[in-house]
Amino acid sequence: MNELRDVARWGTPADAVTLSSDVRGLLSAALGVTGSRPAAATAALPAGTLSETVLKELRSVCPEVATDDEARLAHAAGKSTEDLLRLRAGQADDAPDAVARPATQQQVADLLAVCSRLRVAVVPFGGGTSVVGGLAARREGFAGVLAVDLAALDRLVHLDRVSRTATFEAGVRAPRAERLLAAEGFTLGHFPQSFEYASLGGFAATRSSGQASAGYGRFDRMVVGLRAATPIGLLDTGRAPESAAGPDLRQLLLGSEGAFGVITELTVRVRPAPRAHHYTGWSFPSFDAGAHAVRALAQDGPLPTVLRLSDETETAINAATGGPQAGGCLAVVGVEGTAEDVAGRTAALERRLTELGGTPLGTGPGESWQEGRFRAPYLRDALLDAGAIAETLETATFWDRLPATYAAVRGALMENLSGAGTPPLVLCHISHVYDSGASLYFTVVAAQAEEPVAQWQAAKAAASDAIAASGATITHHHGVGRAHRPWYTREIGDVGVAALHGVKQALDPHGILNPGILLP
Amino acid sequence: MNELRDVARWGTPADAVTLSSDVRGLLSAALGVTGSRPAAATAALPAGTLSETVLKELRSVCPEVATDDEARLAHAAGKSTEDLLRLRAGQADDAPDAVARPATQQQVADLLAVCSRLRVAVVPFGGGTSVVGGLAARREGFAGVLAVDLAALDRLVHLDRVSRTATFEAGVRAPRAERLLAAEGFTLGHFPQSFEYASLGGFAATRSSGQASAGYGRFDRMVVGLRAATPIGLLDTGRAPESAAGPDLRQLLLGSEGAFGVITELTVRVRPAPRAHHYTGWSFPSFDAGAHAVRALAQDGPLPTVLRLSDETETAINAATGGPQAGGCLAVVGVEGTAEDVAGRTAALERRLTELGGTPLGTGPGESWQEGRFRAPYLRDALLDAGAIAETLETATFWDRLPATYAAVRGALMENLSGAGTPPLVLCHISHVYDSGASLYFTVVAAQAEEPVAQWQAAKAAASDAIAASGATITHHHGVGRAHRPWYTREIGDVGVAALHGVKQALDPHGILNPGILLP
Repeated sequence: MNELRDVARWGTPADAVTLSSDVRGLLSAALGVTGSRPAAATAALPAGTLSETVLKELRSVCPEVATDDEARLAHAAGKSTEDLLRLRAGQADDAPDAVARPATQQQVADLLAVCSRLRVAVVPFGGGTSVVGGLAARREGFAGVLAVDLAALDRLVHLDRVSRTATFEAGVRAPRAERLLAAEGFTLGHFPQSFEYASLGGFAATRSSGQASAGYGRFDRMVVGLRAATPIGLLDTGRAPESAAGPDLRQLLLGSEGAFGVITELTVRVRPAPRAHHYTGWSFPSFDAGAHAVRALAQDGPLPTVLRLSDETETAINAATGGPQAGGCLAVVGVEGTAEDVAGRTAALERRLTELGGTPLGTGPGESWQEGRFRAPYLRDALLDAGAIAETLETATFWDRLPATYAAVRGALMENLSGAGTPPLVLCHISHVYDSGASLYFTVVAAQAEEPVAQWQAAKAAASDAIAASGATITHHHGVGRAHRPWYTREIGDVGVAALHGVKQALDPHGILNPGILLP
Repeated sequence: MNELRDVARWGTPADAVTLSSDVRGLLSAALGVTGSRPAAATAALPAGTLSETVLKELRSVCPEVATDDEARLAHAAGKSTEDLLRLRAGQADDAPDAVARPATQQQVADLLAVCSRLRVAVVPFGGGTSVVGGLAARREGFAGVLAVDLAALDRLVHLDRVSRTATFEAGVRAPRAERLLAAEGFTLGHFPQSFEYASLGGFAATRSSGQASAGYGRFDRMVVGLRAATPIGLLDTGRAPESAAGPDLRQLLLGSEGAFGVITELTVRVRPAPRAHHYTGWSFPSFDAGAHAVRALAQDGPLPTVLRLSDETETAINAATGGPQAGGCLAVVGVEGTAEDVAGRTAALERRLTELGGTPLGTGPGESWQEGRFRAPYLRDALLDAGAIAETLETATFWDRLPATYAAVRGALMENLSGAGTPPLVLCHISHVYDSGASLYFTVVAAQAEEPVAQWQAAKAAASDAIAASGATITHHHGVGRAHRPWYTREIGDVGVAALHGVKQALDPHGILNPGILLP
């Protein structure tokens, strides 16, 4: 039996939050959440299935291969609400049998060769922050499951100041990458909610998108080169920023979620670290009016570095729990860059947003959003403790379909959870904008039912069906994993699945790489 | 025997150019070109190999299947100098046995099913402007070769004004696409040198990049959705501008050069048609100084819509043949957009380019470049007639490697052709810029040797070896075809080739799609 305290929740216990009386009051009044649901203290691990012979072969190419319970439990699950609910119930069925910690890229390649020969399933492990079951590999048909934790591959290999690119080993966590770049005057500018723990290799493997994507772009657009170890050898891509030399193999590895290879190194474009920033709040009379405004900025500029728009519910809930008293819909508009650039763009944005019907709320809401930007996962832990269920999901679509997708997903969540006897709060914001469309990011809070995993699975399926029916994509930046796989395979169709299976078969003939993740 | 007049040269005979006395003088003095090399009047076609039974089956799904010599000759080759030299010598060995002209996307799908069953090789044909042998499919092992000319698939299927996307059938030629969009107030903004003839499907299949790429982006970045017919069914991609739903299948079709499927429809983002434009010339004291300036614009802005920089030789040759008297190195800086935007960016560019050491030459050089932008292929025909050889090639790399790649490629061309007794003129310009790198576009002119095809093949191989050795990509926007295949396969490595073969095997199990193109 193993201590769950540090595993079944986000981040570090020292940063845990306590629910304010405002939030407790809201939970009680709006959702009927009154009790508490403490997590189990310990979890039982299934017996490891890797023989000493196999372990010896693994250790012959990578000395650090742990089989202790602590290591296995720490790699047992990602950070979805479903993952946490299972762990909180003392379930750790997906724990790997062993955890390898390669010290070099060559050790990764050698591990894959051994695992392919011995039919050991391999789960690449970066920051462990998957929220789509990306770590829950299928174990049937394999001698066992090996997590390959890339944490030791955390070097800045090369900084090219002229081309403004940085080559990192893939296991580097985002905060360390930013510190290494900051020492040289640069930034990557990628700040997803998982920023404090996730790795650059994980960002690449899952097509992460950060909160400052309007200014810095999605992660998959930052990557100019990738190296990946595969069971049949090394794949090394990216000789130029852009090329007409065939299909873009970088874009085949990006989003491959460990199913085609283990990304061991990546080259990303970097930007000069911003000297100044200016974050403001704006209020719009409605979500439609706000969406029209953010679309206008995305299509005709000026485009800020951060651009988000909460719907009426999210705005009201924020206000009721200590956030800015915005009324209508709150937008956060952040600009980063040189002092001159920030001043110029801020002024242009003020003119344009005013023309578009926005009311300025000053820097308070912007600064407070920025301060709290990585806190939501801690809040979720407190909500789970308090007997609520809380989870997020996201999609993206073209602008013309956005209102219909918004209504359909919101409606599906309301209907499903209300039907289950736990009417939810459904909050939404536009989190990332493009010239032709945007993402919608939903947050759902409800009282926990007797079987909260089944409760959420049903609600999630209803939302996913609504996303698919509206023609939107099943995920904008969380990835596919196991959770989205049924909708994903329908989204890309039989021919798309066949194409990816063709790649999988070629690069991973024994199918050891993250089996069951991404592809059936 | 068939008339070659309209086939063995670019465009239409009415637009043919005559060499000026300046150019003739230069050819004679610099390269020793004095004679003339008229093209043959006719070409012999190999006998068609498709049986009447096969043709009947093809016509049962697509009524328009021609086997006449005129149709076969018109689809016999692309527009590389090597293609033209062979045609001018009366050789048309790569002519297809028949030419299908499907009227619907369904007919394309049906043709592929029949061809797959009967082992007929399929060459998708858009504008026929390949300069890398993209139409010269391998015929060994097949019952014959069918060109599938998509010219009849030229509809604007849907214009989404809200999302600013347009869905076209893939056979639409670029000028028609622009006319259809202009009627609605939009533009695609894609103007490669092949603009007057190339199709949108061809742009996608070869990762084309246009002369205004700084402002409008490469074609592969414009595409938000693609439909392709494959022998195993339809692939339909693109539910959102961006997605984390697995590898980007659009990026797998882009650059696939007909080897994975026939692109039948594509959705591209469009922009409001520009109301104003302002094209100027700038002079820089050296290619290095100019490269530093264009890099500064690409990395820190302001970024114009068009940005090109000629090296010293290209600048001098332009000046000697009636171009602007720039001295040093000529840059063309074009800005398009709203009147206000153009005025603002032009002023900002003037300040910045002056800071960066540029000397303004006014609008003359910019306007004259713009007027002549699609004329170079006509000039090539006149040069071939006059006994010169003329061809272009391109690459791209990161900024830090650009000077070494430039020197290596230029040196290889000079050395190879001089060693063959035909010392060349080698001109170069930076044609497309990105934050982390740029493309180099070389133009080579020399006296024709006795065997001009072998002469150019040797020079091209030397240049390609130099590109590869310098770490650059074998092509920035011409594609792979057959000409670049040996260097391409080395560039992506055995694992990259295996991945693409895996896709090919899955989607095209009998290997009928453009055999020998892109992949061995």
